[in-house]
Amino acid sequence: MAEVAPEPSLLIIGGGGETVRRPLPDSLHVNGGDGTYSYTRNSYFQRLAANVVKGRIKGAITMKLDVEKLSSTSNTIYIADLGCAVGPNTFDAMQDVIHFIQQKYTLQCPQSNTTLQFLVLFNDQPSNDFNTLFTSLPRERPYYAAGVPGSFHRRLFPESSIHFVHCSYALHWLSKVPEELLDKNCGAWNKGRIHYTNAPNEVVQAYASQFAKDMEEFLCARAMEIVTGGMMTIIMPGLPNEMPYSQLAASLMYDFMGSTFMDMVNEGLISEDEVDSFNLPIYTPSPAEMASVVEKNGHFSIEMLELTNPASLVDGQVDIKAWVIHVRAAMERMFIKHFSPDIIDEMFDRLTKKLFMFTEQVESGYKDRTQLLVVLIRK
Amino acid sequence: MAEVAPEPSLLIIGGGGETVRRPLPDSLHVNGGDGTYSYTRNSYFQRLAANVVKGRIKGAITMKLDVEKLSSTSNTIYIADLGCAVGPNTFDAMQDVIHFIQQKYTLQCPQSNTTLQFLVLFNDQPSNDFNTLFTSLPRERPYYAAGVPGSFHRRLFPESSIHFVHCSYALHWLSKVPEELLDKNCGAWNKGRIHYTNAPNEVVQAYASQFAKDMEEFLCARAMEIVTGGMMTIIMPGLPNEMPYSQLAASLMYDFMGSTFMDMVNEGLISEDEVDSFNLPIYTPSPAEMASVVEKNGHFSIEMLELTNPASLVDGQVDIKAWVIHVRAAMERMFIKHFSPDIIDEMFDRLTKKLFMFTEQVESGYKDRTQLLVVLIRK
Repeated sequence: MAEVAPEPSLLIIGGGGETVRRPLPDSLHVNGGDGTYSYTRNSYFQRLAANVVKGRIKGAITMKLDVEKLSSTSNTIYIADLGCAVGPNTFDAMQDVIHFIQQKYTLQCPQSNTTLQFLVLFNDQPSNDFNTLFTSLPRERPYYAAGVPGSFHRRLFPESSIHFVHCSYALHWLSKVPEELLDKNCGAWNKGRIHYTNAPNEVVQAYASQFAKDMEEFLCARAMEIVTGGMMTIIMPGLPNEMPYSQLAASLMYDFMGSTFMDMVNEGLISEDEVDSFNLPIYTPSPAEMASVVEKNGHFSIEMLELTNPASLVDGQVDIKAWVIHVRAAMERMFIKHFSPDIIDEMFDRLTKKLFMFTEQVESGYKDRTQLLVVLIRK
Repeated sequence: MAEVAPEPSLLIIGGGGETVRRPLPDSLHVNGGDGTYSYTRNSYFQRLAANVVKGRIKGAITMKLDVEKLSSTSNTIYIADLGCAVGPNTFDAMQDVIHFIQQKYTLQCPQSNTTLQFLVLFNDQPSNDFNTLFTSLPRERPYYAAGVPGSFHRRLFPESSIHFVHCSYALHWLSKVPEELLDKNCGAWNKGRIHYTNAPNEVVQAYASQFAKDMEEFLCARAMEIVTGGMMTIIMPGLPNEMPYSQLAASLMYDFMGSTFMDMVNEGLISEDEVDSFNLPIYTPSPAEMASVVEKNGHFSIEMLELTNPASLVDGQVDIKAWVIHVRAAMERMFIKHFSPDIIDEMFDRLTKKLFMFTEQVESGYKDRTQLLVVLIRK
């Protein structure tokens, strides 16, 4: 554990045991329960987007994962879904991954009498609604299930204990807001905005370097946990190498969130300080950036790294209202923690109206190849 | 898996994978959160009782657990706490067990440079308040943590994946109420009572045979999960071999609960049917009974099986009010699910008053050697 991802403030208790530091609970979790704005009821866009690369993941497992070797010491395959939130997306994804691994095993060992077993470790922040996750687990499922609370920017599992890691629509969340954004004496002070769309270069750089730092921690932690030959599949928002960030549908939305808050400042509904001190801890890397952090880290080989169109399975025009509710289900906690809860409805109402006025821009940004798929193998 | 603890209704999905059946969520879980009647705030009696055998568990680990052998294939020790409820008792217990295992390892391998790692699997029913458990995990802890939802009467973990199982004040819960108790045409119909204190022999037998059946399922499931040489420590209420059941403090309480409900029937507050159709799924075995089910099962050797006085660390007289609140924290959900929630306060108030009138009987029952400690090794 000391080799990578060192933990700065460990309390060593008797017998030479190591102590794992628990990250502070935070607001980086989706809406729990099953209400109107719950993630359970408002996460099918993410599933449709992830489904676009289902065939690619199957291909990666079939071509690159040596299931025979992974199962040579034990017939149990340990799979982790990092940032799983609540169901049903994580259940579908895990079911798919297990199915592909079983198929590959049959292909590799057609004569084997061994039945593979699976333990799925569902991970998210300690403040995630694990109660809803656990009570909605599929009754019939081809795996044993466990929940693992903690930030995936730190160690979560024992050394060399995991064979497959999946991480879908989670790694764009930074571990924290870059500190420079709040420093009034710094060029990266993000006044009047809540994200880096149309922001000065210093702001964009602060975000980019936080992402690089987070990814290094993430990869070091996973390098300790994943066995040699183990696989990691990452699905997340991605920015085409040559595309200006402001052209993404999501960046348009974050920009409109910021300007909506500023409208509310101008109407005296909230204070300017509240907006200046709030920033979304979200970053969308380009494939080149992603390749660079993985190569610098050095523990994984890149087997696949490509952009796909996340909306290619969505029929017709973007449903802006549903889109905003999806974003709300995923991000509302953060706004509620910072702003007065009373103004949240108002903000999302205004945001929806604003986006309706820019349907064309949303459409064009939405239909691009803005979903990154990364498949890594632990060297 | 087919050898023991077969699962009757499995859906086999592609690739020969086995499917794990999820038990239905039920009301067999303690009060969550941290309110007045929460288990978190009302479980220190259980901790005091468990502390009575802490030294015995240390002794068992030191004398009987071959930590060197268990850690020969991997330096990670997998520990499960079955029926962990919420903190803080489970955290204290796990900290102790890990400390003892580390000490034994140092004793066995004084020259070793290996640092043992630990993964603790906190298990309870899916309806347990895992959110409270996860957000109250000690910040500094010498283990990785996971939660595992499911009934411990069934399989929870992959084959041969666990080195140490702890189960404290949980195994007296039956998997269900014996069906005969509700059959009006059967000698075991438990009319006018909610438990087997002072009940006809048929009622006691129905409970005893449900316990034997549950224990067989429990032991078969654990036999599949625990590696050869792995240890299981069980702490639970126990009935001295020659003592009449009605003499236990707990059985007095269950009897008074029943008579309190009957008083409320007589006053027209609840119906007789409600009482006749309710029974507590709790059983207190004698050491002889416990030895018999373990020997019949055959997968474990009995290293320790003894009764201790659970109240030996409690100063002075029993605090009846606190005792009732402890019982309420552990059992209230079950009453609320069956009876109208409005009458619960009333029942517990009356129960407390009734117990105050029998302080002497409570005292004498309470101070006896009524806590069973069982230490098993997987053959």
